Amino acid sequence: MRVEGLVQGREAFIVCTLNRPDAKLVPLLLLACALRDAGARRIGLVAPYLAYMRQDHRFQSGETVSALHVAAWISRHVDWLVTVDPHLHRIKELSQVYSVPTRVVHAAGAVAAWIKEQAPKPLLIGPDEESAQWVGDIAQRLGAPHIVLSKTRRGDREVEVSAPGLALALARDPAHDPAREATRDPAHWRGHAPVLVDDIVSSASTMIEAVGLLRRAGLDAPVCVAVHALFAQSAFEDLRAAGAADIVSCDSIGHPSNRIKLAPDIAQGVRALLD
Amino acid sequence: MRVEGLVQGREAFIVCTLNRPDAKLVPLLLLACALRDAGARRIGLVAPYLAYMRQDHRFQSGETVSALHVAAWISRHVDWLVTVDPHLHRIKELSQVYSVPTRVVHAAGAVAAWIKEQAPKPLLIGPDEESAQWVGDIAQRLGAPHIVLSKTRRGDREVEVSAPGLALALARDPAHDPAREATRDPAHWRGHAPVLVDDIVSSASTMIEAVGLLRRAGLDAPVCVAVHALFAQSAFEDLRAAGAADIVSCDSIGHPSNRIKLAPDIAQGVRALLD
Repeated sequence: MRVEGLVQGREAFIVCTLNRPDAKLVPLLLLACALRDAGARRIGLVAPYLAYMRQDHRFQSGETVSALHVAAWISRHVDWLVTVDPHLHRIKELSQVYSVPTRVVHAAGAVAAWIKEQAPKPLLIGPDEESAQWVGDIAQRLGAPHIVLSKTRRGDREVEVSAPGLALALARDPAHDPAREATRDPAHWRGHAPVLVDDIVSSASTMIEAVGLLRRAGLDAPVCVAVHALFAQSAFEDLRAAGAADIVSCDSIGHPSNRIKLAPDIAQGVRALLD
Repeated sequence: MRVEGLVQGREAFIVCTLNRPDAKLVPLLLLACALRDAGARRIGLVAPYLAYMRQDHRFQSGETVSALHVAAWISRHVDWLVTVDPHLHRIKELSQVYSVPTRVVHAAGAVAAWIKEQAPKPLLIGPDEESAQWVGDIAQRLGAPHIVLSKTRRGDREVEVSAPGLALALARDPAHDPAREATRDPAHWRGHAPVLVDDIVSSASTMIEAVGLLRRAGLDAPVCVAVHALFAQSAFEDLRAAGAADIVSCDSIGHPSNRIKLAPDIAQGVRALLD
């Protein structure tokens, strides 16, 4: 690891997305050390995808809360952190685990802009309760209706999805006519373009279940949007085979499905943090 | 990373050799965290090959002394460390960089035992000045003569080796007859089995140069012994093609050339440290 530019007294930004993190963290931390040695005034990390945040709990005996440890390592080596929609579930805020200033950039704006351009009359769908936050945000930006499905996890890759919200969603449709509420019928949504949105798509099992559920309900094949396109093993092909009309992702993790650029929002986040 | 055994109150040993270290260090440190969480009384690391010790200096501007940082990370997570012949050059002792108790196991005994069995009448040869320490040690254990060659490094993979010691070595031959000293002739060594020994063989460029030099001096094709068989890219094949009679290594790093077992010496080192 060698810094070739002139760093003395300057702001240093390390840009390193942390999918497949194990092989990246060591060179990343050593780079921070090299920048420090070279006299950088301040060292920041821009990690569009932030690793290990999902291990926010000792799910089974013998495990450790990796999110805590990795955050401590990074906090010891950099002065600030900017990331995009990290997995905040049991850990509610990055400041609970990072001791340096952080800023979370939301992909909702960029995702909404893409949907607006590509999918007229969208019906936003969150595949599980955790997705309610950003699906609601995107729907609001678009003035579009949204549904949140319900997920029961049966294992690492086995999930079951149901749609208690398919009827209720009527009530959330800004163009909703109370007179039609009695229909409570998925048919109401025919003609809408269903857009499934999730933050992290890894095994894609949740997305695949959701696509199946929507198709069985008689909706059009949905477009699937992932903020972070982890796509383990054959997940991408599996999701395509399950009947997704299209699979689109933000570019926080390099993947052939990347079509939503996050750089402008990230740059704004960095600027806001440094100011 | 999950500890499945019962750890509460027990001595935990992590055995992890650190070739290709970047992908191994993160799970290693997280395992130490998991063992700590599970109530291990003490956590030790047995790393037969210890990574990053060669970056013991800022060789070029913009670099960092990685050996220091990696040692600090490991020291923060484990209670003791046992390793085999680490690269101690500018760093003279592990205690200069490790803040936890350490113990260095020497491969010389195991290497000498192997040579004694496999190569009667050996002439031990160190390919460069740094190797003098362990080649001398092995030669003494065997009551055999040894030579140390002289190396000039011209780049990462380019080295030049000369043999100022080829004549002087006569004087170090325990069976040396001063009356014959005048010969100062490599021919004196015909009939000896040349055995080249080095601690870390990575690009093998030093070994390859040394093999060429010995062949040009009219000696038999040498057996090449590596303590740590890193063998980057085509190094192993290149060394074979250069005319090594055989290539043998200790098993600190898994490699097809492994033929010298270190486990008994490592176990003894761990026992001595824990006592």
